[in-house]
Amino acid sequence: MKRYKVFVGGVSKDSIDSYVSSIDFDRKLAKYVAMVMLAHLKNLVNSHLITIETAKKISYELIKIIETEGRRLYEWIEKREEKFEDVFEALEIYLFSVVGEDAGRIAIGRSRNDHISAVLRLSIRDHMIKLLLKLLDLREAFIDKSNKYRETLFPFFTHAQLAQCGSATLYFLTYEYAFSNVWKILLELLELVNQNPLGSGASAGTSVPLNKDVFAKLLCFDSTPLPPYYATGSRLFMLSVASIFTILMAEIGRFVEDMMIMNNIVPHGLEVPREHISTSSIMPHKRNLVTLEIARAKVSRAIGLLTALLSSYKSVPYGYNLDFQEMNIYFYELVKDLDSTLEIITDFIKGLEINSDAINNYLSDKPCWSSDIIEYISINTNIPVRNLYARLAEALQEYWRNNTDPLKSFLKSYGLELADVWKIVKQKPIEKELDVLMNLARERIARDYERVKQINTVLMQCSEELIKI
Amino acid sequence: MKRYKVFVGGVSKDSIDSYVSSIDFDRKLAKYVAMVMLAHLKNLVNSHLITIETAKKISYELIKIIETEGRRLYEWIEKREEKFEDVFEALEIYLFSVVGEDAGRIAIGRSRNDHISAVLRLSIRDHMIKLLLKLLDLREAFIDKSNKYRETLFPFFTHAQLAQCGSATLYFLTYEYAFSNVWKILLELLELVNQNPLGSGASAGTSVPLNKDVFAKLLCFDSTPLPPYYATGSRLFMLSVASIFTILMAEIGRFVEDMMIMNNIVPHGLEVPREHISTSSIMPHKRNLVTLEIARAKVSRAIGLLTALLSSYKSVPYGYNLDFQEMNIYFYELVKDLDSTLEIITDFIKGLEINSDAINNYLSDKPCWSSDIIEYISINTNIPVRNLYARLAEALQEYWRNNTDPLKSFLKSYGLELADVWKIVKQKPIEKELDVLMNLARERIARDYERVKQINTVLMQCSEELIKI
Amino acid sequence: MKRYKVFVGGVSKDSIDSYVSSIDFDRKLAKYVAMVMLAHLKNLVNSHLITIETAKKISYELIKIIETEGRRLYEWIEKREEKFEDVFEALEIYLFSVVGEDAGRIAIGRSRNDHISAVLRLSIRDHMIKLLLKLLDLREAFIDKSNKYRETLFPFFTHAQLAQCGSATLYFLTYEYAFSNVWKILLELLELVNQNPLGSGASAGTSVPLNKDVFAKLLCFDSTPLPPYYATGSRLFMLSVASIFTILMAEIGRFVEDMMIMNNIVPHGLEVPREHISTSSIMPHKRNLVTLEIARAKVSRAIGLLTALLSSYKSVPYGYNLDFQEMNIYFYELVKDLDSTLEIITDFIKGLEINSDAINNYLSDKPCWSSDIIEYISINTNIPVRNLYARLAEALQEYWRNNTDPLKSFLKSYGLELADVWKIVKQKPIEKELDVLMNLARERIARDYERVKQINTVLMQCSEELIKI
Amino acid sequence: MKRYKVFVGGVSKDSIDSYVSSIDFDRKLAKYVAMVMLAHLKNLVNSHLITIETAKKISYELIKIIETEGRRLYEWIEKREEKFEDVFEALEIYLFSVVGEDAGRIAIGRSRNDHISAVLRLSIRDHMIKLLLKLLDLREAFIDKSNKYRETLFPFFTHAQLAQCGSATLYFLTYEYAFSNVWKILLELLELVNQNPLGSGASAGTSVPLNKDVFAKLLCFDSTPLPPYYATGSRLFMLSVASIFTILMAEIGRFVEDMMIMNNIVPHGLEVPREHISTSSIMPHKRNLVTLEIARAKVSRAIGLLTALLSSYKSVPYGYNLDFQEMNIYFYELVKDLDSTLEIITDFIKGLEINSDAINNYLSDKPCWSSDIIEYISINTNIPVRNLYARLAEALQEYWRNNTDPLKSFLKSYGLELADVWKIVKQKPIEKELDVLMNLARERIARDYERVKQINTVLMQCSEELIKI
Repeated sequence: MKRYKVFVGGVSKDSIDSYVSSIDFDRKLAKYVAMVMLAHLKNLVNSHLITIETAKKISYELIKIIETEGRRLYEWIEKREEKFEDVFEALEIYLFSVVGEDAGRIAIGRSRNDHISAVLRLSIRDHMIKLLLKLLDLREAFIDKSNKYRETLFPFFTHAQLAQCGSATLYFLTYEYAFSNVWKILLELLELVNQNPLGSGASAGTSVPLNKDVFAKLLCFDSTPLPPYYATGSRLFMLSVASIFTILMAEIGRFVEDMMIMNNIVPHGLEVPREHISTSSIMPHKRNLVTLEIARAKVSRAIGLLTALLSSYKSVPYGYNLDFQEMNIYFYELVKDLDSTLEIITDFIKGLEINSDAINNYLSDKPCWSSDIIEYISINTNIPVRNLYARLAEALQEYWRNNTDPLKSFLKSYGLELADVWKIVKQKPIEKELDVLMNLARERIARDYERVKQINTVLMQCSEELIKI
Repeated sequence: MKRYKVFVGGVSKDSIDSYVSSIDFDRKLAKYVAMVMLAHLKNLVNSHLITIETAKKISYELIKIIETEGRRLYEWIEKREEKFEDVFEALEIYLFSVVGEDAGRIAIGRSRNDHISAVLRLSIRDHMIKLLLKLLDLREAFIDKSNKYRETLFPFFTHAQLAQCGSATLYFLTYEYAFSNVWKILLELLELVNQNPLGSGASAGTSVPLNKDVFAKLLCFDSTPLPPYYATGSRLFMLSVASIFTILMAEIGRFVEDMMIMNNIVPHGLEVPREHISTSSIMPHKRNLVTLEIARAKVSRAIGLLTALLSSYKSVPYGYNLDFQEMNIYFYELVKDLDSTLEIITDFIKGLEINSDAINNYLSDKPCWSSDIIEYISINTNIPVRNLYARLAEALQEYWRNNTDPLKSFLKSYGLELADVWKIVKQKPIEKELDVLMNLARERIARDYERVKQINTVLMQCSEELIKI
Repeated sequence: MKRYKVFVGGVSKDSIDSYVSSIDFDRKLAKYVAMVMLAHLKNLVNSHLITIETAKKISYELIKIIETEGRRLYEWIEKREEKFEDVFEALEIYLFSVVGEDAGRIAIGRSRNDHISAVLRLSIRDHMIKLLLKLLDLREAFIDKSNKYRETLFPFFTHAQLAQCGSATLYFLTYEYAFSNVWKILLELLELVNQNPLGSGASAGTSVPLNKDVFAKLLCFDSTPLPPYYATGSRLFMLSVASIFTILMAEIGRFVEDMMIMNNIVPHGLEVPREHISTSSIMPHKRNLVTLEIARAKVSRAIGLLTALLSSYKSVPYGYNLDFQEMNIYFYELVKDLDSTLEIITDFIKGLEINSDAINNYLSDKPCWSSDIIEYISINTNIPVRNLYARLAEALQEYWRNNTDPLKSFLKSYGLELADVWKIVKQKPIEKELDVLMNLARERIARDYERVKQINTVLMQCSEELIKI
Repeated sequence: MKRYKVFVGGVSKDSIDSYVSSIDFDRKLAKYVAMVMLAHLKNLVNSHLITIETAKKISYELIKIIETEGRRLYEWIEKREEKFEDVFEALEIYLFSVVGEDAGRIAIGRSRNDHISAVLRLSIRDHMIKLLLKLLDLREAFIDKSNKYRETLFPFFTHAQLAQCGSATLYFLTYEYAFSNVWKILLELLELVNQNPLGSGASAGTSVPLNKDVFAKLLCFDSTPLPPYYATGSRLFMLSVASIFTILMAEIGRFVEDMMIMNNIVPHGLEVPREHISTSSIMPHKRNLVTLEIARAKVSRAIGLLTALLSSYKSVPYGYNLDFQEMNIYFYELVKDLDSTLEIITDFIKGLEINSDAINNYLSDKPCWSSDIIEYISINTNIPVRNLYARLAEALQEYWRNNTDPLKSFLKSYGLELADVWKIVKQKPIEKELDVLMNLARERIARDYERVKQINTVLMQCSEELIKI
């Protein structure tokens, strides 16, 4: 069989074929391409559009491709001198080479446009499940630290400056909670990803009646029918996932900023795992937080990739456009960066230790309790907080100039000493709710693991059904 | 009462105060600021931290501000010569001016950081509900056209070129479906928006015990406790909503491209509502689709605003940063653009008419049925589609050179004539499923209207409870 | 005279007219619109296409508009109930109302497309010159600090950590130099901005012969002829300027990060001007660097605006598109943010003081001299630096654990003491080149002021020529 | 020799080392790394910090690396089991393995921070020169078409709709002119790229006196001294170039839109080179402009990459940050995309043919002459253009409804017939200036080729001087 473009008088030129071909990128999709084609094939058999004999030969090849994660196909491709447009063209010509002219029957009732949409959905679904698990792993790592540092005082910031103090537990819980929210949105997006685009033809349907339930059973897609132009022409599922991935990266960006600040202002406060540190080639005193710096840059890249996706998408008319082929590349770069960054940050958190003494030492002369003490006195004296605020503000002006007397006398006038402030900080209601917050987090995590497990069970069943001959 | 910065020796300078002040922007938040303060006040009364008498005086003022959508406060602000930092500072000083020193009691158990988070959540919740209704209105407009043009043939594109033909119904259903998916994500995000940040202090909690159930009852917030650093330092809710708003704009961008192409290639195919057209000041033959051009640009602006939000957010450490104040501006610019663009596009769709004759005339000599005819013949002759494709490709090569004979003889060899192809197009399974798709869409829309109605009922109850004295 | 769209059967609708109208935004362009129209008018007079008598009447009005910075026109506009498309439509109808039907003669030989391009070029030229002066002011402020803190030791960072130490002069020179490079690019871009688009019709020329030299003389445009499609359809000049403005903002972003780090890690090291500081409403110990936080957010907004501009521009075909009207808004938002931010940062730098004692105190126990000492010993002993690096690395490992003995003995083995390291730091060649670098900077600044002065002189001459009757 | 991090107690872990290592990416920089090291070595020899004998051994290796474009080094790297941090670490350990402990002498007077800045400048300079030549090639291709289609009528657009008609020459000149402006900015930016960062140490200078003139002579750098913090910590040169590259891509994006529109609305108007076309796998009538679609997506990617660069850069403090290492990747992705896209578009333009008959046929019933005819009549009758516009607008309203009578009678009343309009279009002044515009373009191109030639001659001399032993 000839390449598609040759049928219509197209001509090849190496530099141009390389520019438009996605064959190298498609390697990671090859398995899913074979899965979708196998489901299609079984549907054609049901509709008597292909004989069982032919179907068996083709199935055999497709299953081999699935089992080898695409290698069987790509080994053949590498021997060819042609630069195929994409994996679909390569697969069809491969099947011709193995099965002969009957391979020309599977092109009925399908197009590359509905198939790539299905392929992407399967692949993204798998990636999302892996990422959901990694994110759960990270959330668990945060909760472990949360638990470990219950008694450790930690600085809390506003305006990138020390604001309040509290249990380190509250710090780690913060990220677990932020990530659990992202996790939830991603789980909900699985439904959007899981729509079935197959049977939609190139843009406005096919003449072949295909049974959506077959696709649902074999690929675990939802069986609700889609408008075919949407099925082939939409990348809403990809953009939605990409935008939440980017937001997840942005949250990681903030964590990096936290570590950078902590590392700079609290001497020895963080004990960063040694694998995450490099030094200068000429300044041996340096302990650079290199993994975090790389992660920080990748956050910006994620924003750039989302920009690229949105900017591409918004300016093409409906239906499939070849721009989508490039968008796949941008999306999978984002997936790859997110994947490696989640791993690195999880490793970082797991290895991170907090040095309580160093933090206490740092905080000892910082009035991170200013609002707490005002409230405490107000509750006990019925003086309006604003009045107390005014007086404390004055005392602290002097405190900044290394004169501690006004502060001491402010406290003394309410029967307090400087040492008391730390007790007051620890008596705040939130400090007593740590158990509640921890338990909520643990329940969330357990429930979320369970959810992924259930999804995986269902997907496994579809997979087994699919490769049954 | 003095401005906050004065307490700590701060100095004013007009150009600088203007640069950092959000007071002008905050006008749109003033009502929500008063609502949150009122809920806080009631909680303080419950905790006996403020007397009922004082609370009544303050409540009276806050309710007035709520009822006048902030005007009562802003009229006072405008008379002052000061450039307040923000609406919170202005409100406190205003209350001092009305109630006296006792106003200094409401500053207990709160900070601007938990309050602004609550204010934004209330305001965004209201905006989202309005936008969900507008989007439903747009979806309904698409369904109306979907229904009206059941018998109208419509061009479907791939690669920004004519690909297939089918009922115009399929075209309009496509957008309804795309938008219904966006709608669903937005509805789910309401849960994230609806978290209660109140009672979190500046970053690590307050010394005052506040009852979360009171906030839940008065402001319709969820009552699950949040880590206070998350509550005050996260804008995950804003970014998630912003990213889905931007994706919605991107979908609108594609609709604009569709209209531009249709308008250019199918003479008289679209009858665009006259309000949406302007002309040139020197070329009176021009009929520019000006609203769509503006919408198209605003899509790009949405991408830029999302970039601004993400790029700001990812590089600040946790906790509240004043950067968030600017982010509010970017977010509300996006809301405003989305709001007006939804309105314009809905107006456009409602007024849009399709000229069937013009489209039929345009399509009459275009082989948009090529895949359909191949499949049709294959089904009826059992010839592999790829063989038929090869033959039709050859015939069409000639057809492009204005020689129709090979095409005719191709068709004839299977007992077909050129006129038959249009019947075949109309017999495709998808054309028979139009009713199914239409009904699904109508059910979706009815169900979604019902959901918004329920939400509004609940919110109304909270509002009434809140302003009860 | 009627509104343009009415001539072709267009219909008004308030919400739609508001959506597409730029009349409010155009206020800031009104003066330039009148200037361009006046130059056009004089060209028409030269070509005998308008009588001197009519021209005088129209000139009178245009000059009034120029002199009132557009107010004369906008006062008239505000009285009208119509929502004009833009200032061009308003101006023509205004001239009709004053001059009568003869106003209909100025529409010859022009279009809104060549005129808006000329208007933007004039306006951007003026803005750029103002910004070049502001940037010079900022550079000078940096040089002043550079000069003032010659003897002050300053920390220099790599990987957001303390790396080396050196004269504070080097720090301030860094930014002056960075900004001088941006300055130079902007100056070169003036040439691109200064091209003459007038006489290009709507897209492919006008039937009226217009003399480019007249435009050159009256508007100070370059007189080289442009392809008319470029003249009317390009925004290359705007995008180039916007991208350099954004890069300038990014450099400011880095300065903000420097100040944030310095402020956090070197207690009392920076004495920030008090106008730039605010505090918390509940934590009176806070000294938030609020202007810098706002500036930091505006940097992200600049990136977003550039994204919006590029994303709009890249997806419209050549020729004028109404998207350009929105792009104007985004561009001028960027100008406004850059303008105010330059002012704020300049004010900040001018008021900033460095506390040498605090910095010395901070640095006293930090080995920011590690690379210097290695090089110093190597030069004096001929031991390879890498060997010394290895030994110092070991000594510093202990130093981190608060054991200074190994470090002392390392130094001692080369006849050095800890106190010597600071002398060695000050003996580095770069410290001796400070005068050279300072002089280069001062010469650059003087030369750049001179250049702007020359440009302003030329522009003044054109202006005078233009409003001569 | 050990890896740097080992000296300070660092520990390796595969996944982490892979995450932070740039060794694979650095392959394309290896040649320049060796060049910079060679220049550094010669400077050390001059300063007697290294013996001639040792220098010769090291030089030999460096020259080999230069001559093999880095392969000699990378073959050694591939045999090692270590994941080096970057090419600098690998090179030093390689030199140790060949030269022994004396290799430890070249680490004096340098850091990776000043060296990578120099390496990037050399590499970017080379890339820019190649791209300047490619862009010249593209400009020449446009001028060739400009010349070929002097007599061909071409449609010009505004608002993505047909506006005016004119010689196709004007169309092709437009892009040559746009690109010549970009070309000029890039040439000017070479000066910024060409600054010499060597001798700046890690951030605040080195203790070793190095002669800037040596670097100037051997690497063709400018010899003006830079503040060392700028030299090592600035990526202004990279961002400026990246932003102009992105703008160049945006201009290409617009060209793609032009071709898409032309291809859709003027049947057979464009004869696109066959290598640039592919078809559908199921719709053999499709002729997809696949190269342009890919190019269009890459334009969006360029915007995304610029966003990533700016967003990274703006949020790191001054001095070198490891984020810069990731930024290199983003920048070179942009270079690669620009490079291949320029090649593809040049190939497209060279092969593109315009079908005059098809365009004439298309234009024959379109009033793209409306403004021209109004001006023509006004000039000849002294009737104000606005009056003529009003009348023609009315006539065209009917013309749209297929009633040509009013138009004919409008023309007739001024002694014109429909056929005359085309003559009038051709008589426009701009049509007579085609020669002038063409000559200006040709002169620009010739002059620009000459400039690149001169630069290349100078660079060649430095190269020869550098590798002289």
